Amino acid sequence: MNDQPIFNRLALIGFGLIGGSIARAARAQGAVRSIVATARSAATRKRVAELGVVDQVVESNAAAAEGADLVIVCIPVGACGPVAQEIGPHLIKGATVSDVGSVKGSVMRDMAPHLPSHVHFVPAHPVAGTEYSGPDSGFAELFVNRWCILTPPPDADKEAVERLATFWRKLGANVESMPADHHDLVLGITSHLPHLIAYTIVGTADELSEVTRSEVLKFSAGGFRDFTRIAASDPTMWRDVFLANKDAVLEMLGRFNEDLSALTRAMRSGDGQTLFDHFARTRAIRRGIVEIGQDSPAPDFGRAHPTLPAKPLPRPYAADNE
Amino acid sequence: MNDQPIFNRLALIGFGLIGGSIARAARAQGAVRSIVATARSAATRKRVAELGVVDQVVESNAAAAEGADLVIVCIPVGACGPVAQEIGPHLIKGATVSDVGSVKGSVMRDMAPHLPSHVHFVPAHPVAGTEYSGPDSGFAELFVNRWCILTPPPDADKEAVERLATFWRKLGANVESMPADHHDLVLGITSHLPHLIAYTIVGTADELSEVTRSEVLKFSAGGFRDFTRIAASDPTMWRDVFLANKDAVLEMLGRFNEDLSALTRAMRSGDGQTLFDHFARTRAIRRGIVEIGQDSPAPDFGRAHPTLPAKPLPRPYAADNE
Repeated sequence: MNDQPIFNRLALIGFGLIGGSIARAARAQGAVRSIVATARSAATRKRVAELGVVDQVVESNAAAAEGADLVIVCIPVGACGPVAQEIGPHLIKGATVSDVGSVKGSVMRDMAPHLPSHVHFVPAHPVAGTEYSGPDSGFAELFVNRWCILTPPPDADKEAVERLATFWRKLGANVESMPADHHDLVLGITSHLPHLIAYTIVGTADELSEVTRSEVLKFSAGGFRDFTRIAASDPTMWRDVFLANKDAVLEMLGRFNEDLSALTRAMRSGDGQTLFDHFARTRAIRRGIVEIGQDSPAPDFGRAHPTLPAKPLPRPYAADNE
Repeated sequence: MNDQPIFNRLALIGFGLIGGSIARAARAQGAVRSIVATARSAATRKRVAELGVVDQVVESNAAAAEGADLVIVCIPVGACGPVAQEIGPHLIKGATVSDVGSVKGSVMRDMAPHLPSHVHFVPAHPVAGTEYSGPDSGFAELFVNRWCILTPPPDADKEAVERLATFWRKLGANVESMPADHHDLVLGITSHLPHLIAYTIVGTADELSEVTRSEVLKFSAGGFRDFTRIAASDPTMWRDVFLANKDAVLEMLGRFNEDLSALTRAMRSGDGQTLFDHFARTRAIRRGIVEIGQDSPAPDFGRAHPTLPAKPLPRPYAADNE
């Protein structure tokens, strides 16, 4: 039974990093019988067809939704409402409609009114990604050991929720359910605020007149380069996230600013003990993340280090004065 | 000639990540004829002797300095002054004295007065590291393709500066010289401010009452986990950095806060265009860093992804109703 596909026909609307990874993982795991995909741009649809990782590429969201028993909308959160409106009339009875958006309150508010009562709407957010985007960037392993958060509405059909959870588990993910507003608060601190901060500091570094861009790039291994990876994330996706989760991000930003002021004050007044105590405490959080397998214990994220230049031949000590 | 050792006897005072990596790289590359090391704690000295990566372990800084023609102080910047005072009387004529501190103005101010006029004082900062510390954390490849910044005083002996530069190149590093105050400004933005921000946000996340620590850890793959690596850096080292480079860090923090306010305002007022333009610009900085080889183009820093669970056997479509 476990080897049976969980859905018959999966429709992916949008084929960026997440949509493309779902397609590859679902196929690799036999999670569905067939996959139909579409994307807004003709160039992306052409590329998806070339990649050969789905069974069918269609030209419209409506056509993708037709006959699918699982429809996953994999697009920036700001576009979810209009897409729900397009697909609504084409959804089959009993279909599950889901998404992958990083904000859940706004997606539920924007999509729900356009979906017919004969479908199951179960919003989802796989907490996984890289700094790359586009149809070529996906890979089947993206969700393995990552968490997928479901935020079913209170009246959601339990069986439909469990079926979607099983789908995500088949793709390698761990699944948890929570209310949408709690999701938005949690992700506000574990994802949205870190992105806002990283986008800010990378911009700040680029605008300094005293330090050249060349210097910023060359000496970025001191910590800055880590921030640039996050600040290289898809601009459209992130614009939408900040607009859609404004309240939670502003709340978290307020807390962050208070804490930054406290550390700044300690630095200004030469209070080394406060700095030391804070820095020793945050080290423990890192250990916790590594212990539960949400990051690698390898130094520097396991970044590859080039090898040393060729080693000179060993010379006898006495030969020094040659 | 190129294969000749560059110094005769290297003394390493302090044997953490950087000291331990210098020892391993210098030995692997035949950059010196012999290496003597010491460390403040007896436990570290014992461990260094066990590791077998240096020729001799001694019990005091003075004993390490005796007879060494290159002495590198590899300790938190706040301890550099007292150590210079200890080793001063024991330095041989013509010896080069250097360090690896992340702040250069304070190190020059603290060390120079204690060093005799018959030695060459050439401060240095290899911009390389990981979040690990201690005698076991070093490795020979740490400096390959990273930059080592020298901040020789204006009256430094050119030959001595070039000799130290050659030593660092032999360890795989690129070398650049600049005035100490410029170094402190550049590193203020490429290293110190990113660390302060990371330490802050990790602390903020840990103190929230609405979001549990377990949730922060589980959903950290949304971006937060990247910050935790930096915030796991050595607390003593970083306490000293912020106290020693206070002025430059406060200056950079001021710029950062202005930029953060501007993005916050855009978010609050729903100005998506400003957000999008900023996010698209920062993406280019990441590309620049990857292009000059200061970070990997691999997605997600090349983090390893676990494989998918075992793939089910393919089943013929007709077998669905079994």
